Amino acid sequence: MTTQHDLFDSVKEQTILTQIAALSGWDALTGMPKDAGHFRAEMDAYLAEKLFQVSTGSARKKILEDLEADDSSLDNLGHLVLQKARKDFDMTGNIPEQDFIAFQKTLSEAQDFWARAREANDYKVYQPYLERIISYLKQFIPLWQKNEKTPYDVLLNQYEPGLTVEKLDAVFDQVKNGITTLRHKLSANDSIPNDEFLSRKVTKAQQSKYAMAAAQRLGYNLNKGRLDDTIHPFMEALNRDDARITTRWDENNFQMAVLGILHEAGHGLFEQNVDSKYDDVRSVLPISMSIHESQSLFNEVMVGRSKEFWAVEYPKLQAIVAPTFDDINFDQFYQAWLKTEATLIRTEADPLTYPLHIIIRYEIEKAIFNDNVDISDLPALWNKKYKEYLGLEVPDDLTGILQDIHWAGGSFGYFPSYALGHLYAAQFRATMTKTLDFKAIFESGDYSPIFEWRKEHIWQYGGAVDPNKVLEDATGEPLNPQYWLDFVNGLYENVN
Amino acid sequence: MTTQHDLFDSVKEQTILTQIAALSGWDALTGMPKDAGHFRAEMDAYLAEKLFQVSTGSARKKILEDLEADDSSLDNLGHLVLQKARKDFDMTGNIPEQDFIAFQKTLSEAQDFWARAREANDYKVYQPYLERIISYLKQFIPLWQKNEKTPYDVLLNQYEPGLTVEKLDAVFDQVKNGITTLRHKLSANDSIPNDEFLSRKVTKAQQSKYAMAAAQRLGYNLNKGRLDDTIHPFMEALNRDDARITTRWDENNFQMAVLGILHEAGHGLFEQNVDSKYDDVRSVLPISMSIHESQSLFNEVMVGRSKEFWAVEYPKLQAIVAPTFDDINFDQFYQAWLKTEATLIRTEADPLTYPLHIIIRYEIEKAIFNDNVDISDLPALWNKKYKEYLGLEVPDDLTGILQDIHWAGGSFGYFPSYALGHLYAAQFRATMTKTLDFKAIFESGDYSPIFEWRKEHIWQYGGAVDPNKVLEDATGEPLNPQYWLDFVNGLYENVN
Repeated sequence: MTTQHDLFDSVKEQTILTQIAALSGWDALTGMPKDAGHFRAEMDAYLAEKLFQVSTGSARKKILEDLEADDSSLDNLGHLVLQKARKDFDMTGNIPEQDFIAFQKTLSEAQDFWARAREANDYKVYQPYLERIISYLKQFIPLWQKNEKTPYDVLLNQYEPGLTVEKLDAVFDQVKNGITTLRHKLSANDSIPNDEFLSRKVTKAQQSKYAMAAAQRLGYNLNKGRLDDTIHPFMEALNRDDARITTRWDENNFQMAVLGILHEAGHGLFEQNVDSKYDDVRSVLPISMSIHESQSLFNEVMVGRSKEFWAVEYPKLQAIVAPTFDDINFDQFYQAWLKTEATLIRTEADPLTYPLHIIIRYEIEKAIFNDNVDISDLPALWNKKYKEYLGLEVPDDLTGILQDIHWAGGSFGYFPSYALGHLYAAQFRATMTKTLDFKAIFESGDYSPIFEWRKEHIWQYGGAVDPNKVLEDATGEPLNPQYWLDFVNGLYENVN
Repeated sequence: MTTQHDLFDSVKEQTILTQIAALSGWDALTGMPKDAGHFRAEMDAYLAEKLFQVSTGSARKKILEDLEADDSSLDNLGHLVLQKARKDFDMTGNIPEQDFIAFQKTLSEAQDFWARAREANDYKVYQPYLERIISYLKQFIPLWQKNEKTPYDVLLNQYEPGLTVEKLDAVFDQVKNGITTLRHKLSANDSIPNDEFLSRKVTKAQQSKYAMAAAQRLGYNLNKGRLDDTIHPFMEALNRDDARITTRWDENNFQMAVLGILHEAGHGLFEQNVDSKYDDVRSVLPISMSIHESQSLFNEVMVGRSKEFWAVEYPKLQAIVAPTFDDINFDQFYQAWLKTEATLIRTEADPLTYPLHIIIRYEIEKAIFNDNVDISDLPALWNKKYKEYLGLEVPDDLTGILQDIHWAGGSFGYFPSYALGHLYAAQFRATMTKTLDFKAIFESGDYSPIFEWRKEHIWQYGGAVDPNKVLEDATGEPLNPQYWLDFVNGLYENVN
């Protein structure tokens, strides 16, 4: 008889393979020797094949079917794992094998041609591959569709269970209007803060010493993590006792690494504090992107841009880099730290304009899947929206539609999570401030009440609870973008 | 029909699993977060189980038997791979499964009790586990034995194909006598070189800059390797394009890291230069320990202790650490660099006395397996031999019989390879000097003739050719310890 034990054994193998793949991924991006890529590609292909076999092979299929027919051996966690393993299975299991393989091949070619298009600064080099990816997805969507209302809802749901176009349209309209109103207010005030001192030289050792100490004050545990150098910062969690972060350094822009380390440590904090009861089954309970991002952004924006944090932390930073900022008082520092400026590039955006970049991508993705817009029209659509929402002329494809790799990887429906992370973070913060006095906590030097709140209400559940339920249980209401608008209004009301 | 293709596919899977295990091993020793050990243990156990299945499972068994019955599909490499895969299979395949599992369990307990015995400085804590390991090995030896003359020959052969007690007795007698004669000569000369300056502070950055540049001059390629910090230095090769080295640092003893990096880079050089035709089958063609060690020791001793190398390198070192050694001339430097002193601890031994440490272990291992000496008598036997061969009183078990972990891991027969590495290195060097002028090569700044010789005669073969054949083909004669005795006599004739 097939029991929960069989299911958990199978998912544990998947979890171990995921951990191995994570180690390889971390290594490849932090320090693998330059010439070793071809050997690594073989190793990663082997792991991908094993993972595919375990999560969609005949043994898994039998376990799922047997337990769906007789679930008497399942406890609560067992039911959840069965449901999530079934979802995993259906993602690829419903697609004819030759189509799945052809799609994977197209994705890897597309990423190459995306890079070539960037070199040539020409969208047309990449367009045929983008068309093929979209065409495959349009073919798969009906196979995935359960009760989602529109094709794009199907894609949204793969990254954020329960998310719909209907909800997002309303949320993003409110966000768009709120940002536009605030930006008009700010642009009426033309005093520009002096932030020249942010480019003074701060050594890598000083930056690391300050930022890692601050990350640890927020609870990041170096017995369960480490910091590495990389080109594109990321957090990679092999398991809850091994959640590694990376950063890049610029000795003439210490703000980048400080905020980057706080951000990645936020991801790491989450992983380090998931309840141990999910250890063996974490591969089918991945933490949703939006809720993960809400915790990195909580560190980076809700804490790392806040006045009450820096009022206490700035002297600590000054002491480590002394005498570099001895002549900069706290008000000068904080005005510069918050300076906002619209940019063409999403990853360089400030906290205020960031959601506009996401909304543009969301609207284009919706147009592709729900309105069948022509793929050759995308650059013009992109440029029109950047002009309309951010007031910027897009000079070329490189700083425009070619800037993100996500579409080349088939990740349509993923971008909205980046914006949701901001909104969730603000809603969590608003709830916390009802019972926690942030100013007093930072002044006390013991930041653990904030840590404990986040652990109790968010982190412990890992990916076992859907993001909208985590949000509602923790804050008592569904997603309400007004919290984020209030937060950014408060942040910017005295600057610029 | 089973063909070479099936064999190579199976061995390639083994190779990929070996590569994954190597990455995990490297990570665990260089920077894995402290708390992550229990997750890693599960991952490593999973990999070990998969490796065991692939190399000794029923699928492999069928491939071996089919190809042994009909080898018409095999080319030369195919025959070699078949023979080595069979050897792998028989190592564990001939042992009853429950005994194999019990033996593995004993080994892991023994390593724990070895550590506890070291803490208690008491051999007796460890003795019962050592007895059990030896008893298992005595039970397995008849199952492994083919045409080896004595039980201990069986163990020697597992690490060094073709090695026998008969050969080693003769070789080690000659080495022992030669060292003893030279040590008497040296002790008659009582001028002790001043080596105080070797403890002057040299920063880690300076040590690394000098040693890595020197390693690269000898051919170590950083596009196919990297340097990490560790407690116990090692080289870990995932594949020929990823041969990583580690070192430990002491700012008041730069000699340790410089010689250590040259040593590990010697291992790395070998791995980086194995012919690519062995890429997929390297898991069944491991490079023999003695021949591997001959190349690390070639770097460390044949080059790293030689006068012609340092005559050219010392000014480079001086420049990097300036002004630290500006007052030390080359003769003062070189006298100190070569200083020899007998020590109780093998890993701290100088090049002259090192083989005596190995000979002591060899003689004890031989007594255990061929003469059935009582395990409780080993400490007394150990201490007697240290007195006799090195003139040292062993004050306790910690600095005596408990110093090495090898026996707790079941690695009897392994130690002799350490000594053979020294002898091979000297024999290779003697042959090279017939056609290569080391002094002129170092002075030219282009060390590639030495690199090319080693690649052509040694490295390219990897583990595909037995070590004694590599030695004979490269040097034109079987192992002759006189080359090593001549080398150390030459090294020490003008010092101490």
